[in-house]
Amino acid sequence: MNTAAGRIDWTRRHMPLLAQMRVRFESSKPFDGMTMGFRIHLEPKTAVLMETLLAGGASIQAIGNQGTTQFDTVEFLTEAGATIIEKPGETKADIEANLDTLAALRPQIVLDNGAELIVRCLDNGTPPMGATEETTSGAFLLREQFEGRVGFPVIVINDSPLKAIVENKHAVGESTMDEIVRTTNVSLHRKRVVVFGYGWCGRGIAQYGRDRGADITVVDIDPIKALEAAMDGFNTASADEAASLGQIFITATGRPGVIPYERMEMMQDGAILVNVGHVDTEIDIPGLHSNTDRVEVKSSITQHDMPSGRTLFVLADGQMANLAVEGGRGNSIESMDLGFTLQALSLELLATNPSSLPKGPQPVPDSINKWIATTMLEIMNGAS
Amino acid sequence: MNTAAGRIDWTRRHMPLLAQMRVRFESSKPFDGMTMGFRIHLEPKTAVLMETLLAGGASIQAIGNQGTTQFDTVEFLTEAGATIIEKPGETKADIEANLDTLAALRPQIVLDNGAELIVRCLDNGTPPMGATEETTSGAFLLREQFEGRVGFPVIVINDSPLKAIVENKHAVGESTMDEIVRTTNVSLHRKRVVVFGYGWCGRGIAQYGRDRGADITVVDIDPIKALEAAMDGFNTASADEAASLGQIFITATGRPGVIPYERMEMMQDGAILVNVGHVDTEIDIPGLHSNTDRVEVKSSITQHDMPSGRTLFVLADGQMANLAVEGGRGNSIESMDLGFTLQALSLELLATNPSSLPKGPQPVPDSINKWIATTMLEIMNGAS
Amino acid sequence: MNTAAGRIDWTRRHMPLLAQMRVRFESSKPFDGMTMGFRIHLEPKTAVLMETLLAGGASIQAIGNQGTTQFDTVEFLTEAGATIIEKPGETKADIEANLDTLAALRPQIVLDNGAELIVRCLDNGTPPMGATEETTSGAFLLREQFEGRVGFPVIVINDSPLKAIVENKHAVGESTMDEIVRTTNVSLHRKRVVVFGYGWCGRGIAQYGRDRGADITVVDIDPIKALEAAMDGFNTASADEAASLGQIFITATGRPGVIPYERMEMMQDGAILVNVGHVDTEIDIPGLHSNTDRVEVKSSITQHDMPSGRTLFVLADGQMANLAVEGGRGNSIESMDLGFTLQALSLELLATNPSSLPKGPQPVPDSINKWIATTMLEIMNGAS
Amino acid sequence: MNTAAGRIDWTRRHMPLLAQMRVRFESSKPFDGMTMGFRIHLEPKTAVLMETLLAGGASIQAIGNQGTTQFDTVEFLTEAGATIIEKPGETKADIEANLDTLAALRPQIVLDNGAELIVRCLDNGTPPMGATEETTSGAFLLREQFEGRVGFPVIVINDSPLKAIVENKHAVGESTMDEIVRTTNVSLHRKRVVVFGYGWCGRGIAQYGRDRGADITVVDIDPIKALEAAMDGFNTASADEAASLGQIFITATGRPGVIPYERMEMMQDGAILVNVGHVDTEIDIPGLHSNTDRVEVKSSITQHDMPSGRTLFVLADGQMANLAVEGGRGNSIESMDLGFTLQALSLELLATNPSSLPKGPQPVPDSINKWIATTMLEIMNGAS
Repeated sequence: MNTAAGRIDWTRRHMPLLAQMRVRFESSKPFDGMTMGFRIHLEPKTAVLMETLLAGGASIQAIGNQGTTQFDTVEFLTEAGATIIEKPGETKADIEANLDTLAALRPQIVLDNGAELIVRCLDNGTPPMGATEETTSGAFLLREQFEGRVGFPVIVINDSPLKAIVENKHAVGESTMDEIVRTTNVSLHRKRVVVFGYGWCGRGIAQYGRDRGADITVVDIDPIKALEAAMDGFNTASADEAASLGQIFITATGRPGVIPYERMEMMQDGAILVNVGHVDTEIDIPGLHSNTDRVEVKSSITQHDMPSGRTLFVLADGQMANLAVEGGRGNSIESMDLGFTLQALSLELLATNPSSLPKGPQPVPDSINKWIATTMLEIMNGAS
Repeated sequence: MNTAAGRIDWTRRHMPLLAQMRVRFESSKPFDGMTMGFRIHLEPKTAVLMETLLAGGASIQAIGNQGTTQFDTVEFLTEAGATIIEKPGETKADIEANLDTLAALRPQIVLDNGAELIVRCLDNGTPPMGATEETTSGAFLLREQFEGRVGFPVIVINDSPLKAIVENKHAVGESTMDEIVRTTNVSLHRKRVVVFGYGWCGRGIAQYGRDRGADITVVDIDPIKALEAAMDGFNTASADEAASLGQIFITATGRPGVIPYERMEMMQDGAILVNVGHVDTEIDIPGLHSNTDRVEVKSSITQHDMPSGRTLFVLADGQMANLAVEGGRGNSIESMDLGFTLQALSLELLATNPSSLPKGPQPVPDSINKWIATTMLEIMNGAS
Repeated sequence: MNTAAGRIDWTRRHMPLLAQMRVRFESSKPFDGMTMGFRIHLEPKTAVLMETLLAGGASIQAIGNQGTTQFDTVEFLTEAGATIIEKPGETKADIEANLDTLAALRPQIVLDNGAELIVRCLDNGTPPMGATEETTSGAFLLREQFEGRVGFPVIVINDSPLKAIVENKHAVGESTMDEIVRTTNVSLHRKRVVVFGYGWCGRGIAQYGRDRGADITVVDIDPIKALEAAMDGFNTASADEAASLGQIFITATGRPGVIPYERMEMMQDGAILVNVGHVDTEIDIPGLHSNTDRVEVKSSITQHDMPSGRTLFVLADGQMANLAVEGGRGNSIESMDLGFTLQALSLELLATNPSSLPKGPQPVPDSINKWIATTMLEIMNGAS
Repeated sequence: MNTAAGRIDWTRRHMPLLAQMRVRFESSKPFDGMTMGFRIHLEPKTAVLMETLLAGGASIQAIGNQGTTQFDTVEFLTEAGATIIEKPGETKADIEANLDTLAALRPQIVLDNGAELIVRCLDNGTPPMGATEETTSGAFLLREQFEGRVGFPVIVINDSPLKAIVENKHAVGESTMDEIVRTTNVSLHRKRVVVFGYGWCGRGIAQYGRDRGADITVVDIDPIKALEAAMDGFNTASADEAASLGQIFITATGRPGVIPYERMEMMQDGAILVNVGHVDTEIDIPGLHSNTDRVEVKSSITQHDMPSGRTLFVLADGQMANLAVEGGRGNSIESMDLGFTLQALSLELLATNPSSLPKGPQPVPDSINKWIATTMLEIMNGAS
């Protein structure tokens, strides 16, 4: 039974917030008769979200995201009543066409991941009643390029303070160190690990790294954050000082150009470079590639022999390593349960009371954040 | 040499930020010819601040605060050139009179602690060029009662983000647990300790308590903060659940009425109550006193036999325990070095360029916060 | 270049102790002209050990262990000059035959893993000059069944105190929590995790589990060890109390029968059972299988519906989970570098000065332990 | 009521193990009709031990230890029925005379602290039925100088494994950092603290120091212990390397000569030296005094201006700082409850079944250790 159904069963069992949503939606049917258009990773966790919304009466039309679709999950969802507009082996052009197809179906509610589907609905002149947008970058796009033109509420999931705590600090911090250890198979005990950025992600990375015995140095261009790191017990240094002393470098600033090529030239032989920020330009990979050969030495690790004679290694070509390394487990089921319940309650509100919300991109309503925090604590403190 | 001079030497040695101020002020003399009026605790740490300002050319007139004056320090300061308007054994009326005397001297720059001196200068119609106010409550008073009437800049020291990190989280969190352990002489290992409030102080208290082996439960009425505590690895509970399970209770919310008398009636025999919030009404001490006898069982610990037959204990009568217990060491010299350098740089700015600042209460300028954070990190990372 | 050679390069780069051995052996050639018989897992880490011994002049004849052989590593080793007596897809009978073949070659030095090769040499009447035995169970077998009949020194690697610290506490403790999190994809934050046994492994598991936010309860039948756990800040309970409160159970006692079937009947719905002790009978898997169906719900996780209606889950069928789950990364390269340098120095001593050692099973000489500890610290504190 | 009685009430309330002893002794009267001779610190904690033994029918004759006697406690004990052979302000000669007086009373059971009382009983030819000796050094004296001449059992309390865990690692580790922080009033955040020795005390000191934000470096001449420290996440260094980098030095090795005068000459200006080992010769104080003036700069801190121009500071003149600094709180009540219950059960065994024990110095019987560990866990896990 190691099948999609088995894995979805396992996942569902560890999503107690969505289980409560399902009971609620089965009774209230908030999405009855509505067409919902989804752009989303299609794998067991999202399957549990989608079956929850189906239980609320939704008609779901969905496409996957960035080639991450698991087709045995698609099969499961199709049997459950969703329509998935995607086939194995599609090209980039196919994916664009799927987005067009989905927008043409005029979904009343949209769940988007990068705002491309919302943009198409705007361009078609067939706006939905409301939408959720998973990412901060999608929200940024709407705010910058479509200012004043988004005549319906768009709830931006990633701006919830629950995400900063549960996902950025803990889920990302923990999984980053997990994936570095698993992919490299090196011990972090007494390794000199440099963390760029002491925001929520950086705080988590520094803490979980110290827990594994690493000697952590934090770099932050804001001296107040650097002082916070020092008071929390970490070494601090400037970027250039850190460059010559670290053995492993992790960028988590959200800004491009944190490790330009010149800084790589200061690094010790054998240094390992890792990015976990959403922006894949924190490490200057193009600069590295134009100066060195890229040799895959081990799954998700490339070797770069520098003109100086030293060798550097890069994880996942500078993509978000906690997700992009081969076999990466992603965030925990429970942190996705939180994120998807933010989605479910936001979608319910958009479907049942859209006029209560302002137009355009906006944060998750505080009442939703508080209900989820309260319920999550009850579950943590409860019997299972 | 265990004298004021010896203790001030020791203190000065551990105030490297003020040492840098002194060099700077000796050269630039920013306070030359000015009269500065101070309301401040008079003990070795403030003596180092005052000699630093004297080196900048100031003429200082000062009175103490809340009966904490150490008169051998006064002697030292007098020799150094300051004027201290306070004698041993003064009554409350004497202190009021001292404030009047000091205001009548028309200081050009005021350093205040609770805004009473600033208020007198306003009432006299002789406002200073500028002032610093140490406390948030003093700033609140000025904003509420004197809105629009404060025609000079008042820099509010306690609102600096450096204070939240260095003083609230770390200095208060650490010293709270230190003083509980020292005053009670009980071990915290596996004791059930309940922390009310997961702000900066509460985060520090919870962390330093866990480090001493305590089984920490956090109570916060904001479920998002409570969830943060849970993700940080602490138990969470409602106030009433916590009341019946705790052995030690610590309030750090900044709000009154956190432990009303009825909640004390739920507590186990032997429970110890501690407040560290600035508001001394977090624990309902008057309610406790009107229902029980107050018996001092040990220095700074009172015993209260409840009508139920159970016994509760209170530290320092519900005053801020980290400061109020007998022999309490207060915050570290280094955290005071930070706080006093916020003062020194703010006073310099008020003396040399007051017109660059808006009128009324305002936070410490960001440039001052950043210079201090940068310099403090250099010192931490440096040779001594 | 994601090939055996690439992976062995990566591995070699992180084995600095063996790198020092290689330089030493290339110069001193301690194994010149000797035949060494190896029973060992054949994968990149052991490849680095074997090439190090080859550099010392050894002629190596080797067979794999328990079906873990990676045949691209075999190819690499063959090119390097070793002889590997094993083919893909061999049966249990083939493996027995290989052991016979290897023993018949009369190796002068034996590296064994379970003592089966040593026993064959004894049975053949062709004892080696000396041997190393990796496991405690192999050493136990020799002591019990061959007492007085082992006329040559057998150095037992696993009894080194370095292994207790580096491998049991840190490598096993850390990888156990890593593999639970990766295989289940559940978050450990505030999960009630019960650890059976507070020896070296249990101490590590409890610590690394707390670091991931778990609420750890330690069970140890020795109250002195349980008290140590409590002082270290963990909950403690009896086995039966723990059975009804835990969500995840981890056995690390080294003794059979820690979780008999009756104790499983007390567990909550959804409980997950994990063994990391060397003995695969800590959890009564046969008892569970005779009372429930075994359904694989996800890779390395089986589901068991109990007669009570509750469901339990087992990782890796009760085998040592940190190694046995699918895709398990095993111990870090650095911890294997330590273990293999214990081997290399012990083998050197057996080859060059066997008469300095007593006959029979014995611990690693203290001088070897100390040299390795000293050198490992130099490497940790050094430039790379 | 801040009187001896009040403080003893408070202490008794936090000694739940002795409370169980009292119930047991009141019923069984194990000491009925016996004279017990005590050499012991006379303060509230020991008062609770003595009243417990009085409840068991003992006639107690006691003298204090090393000038630590609190005479209001003596008054309390006298009223409770004990005889205290000590007056305020006694000279060293008086104390010697008291020991003679006590030995001449021929106590049947002796509780000693340094073996001087036992030695006198031996010298008098009037040996007791049995004795307990608190210290390892007292036991050492008996083993070395009186080998074969101690014809009665002497149970050595300090050798109990419970003491290593509860007292050495946790009580000493925690109180050492507490007293350094309180006496110096400096912050440990990012201070470079060097810990000499990674035995039980050193492990605790390193851990509690890291918890306060210090950057800990461990020095141990045994590389296996140093490696354990490194794996636990600490820096390691040789004694000479550490001498030039530390800001605070703490010796906890139990061996003399750890910091000879020459090593002090390598230290940075402002370095603070602290000893917590039982041997007060770990730091070469005589060497320091013969080369520098000793100036008390602050209570329990002396300043030493070195010929090099640098200044060093010493806490408590190199005596065990966690106990010897002025106002030091000593170990927690609970850790003393443990130690005194080891005493109480050992004394009971000596009184009721001395022939079951071998003659001479011996460890606490394992059954006593296990009973105490079990009961202490029940109390920790129980209602109060």
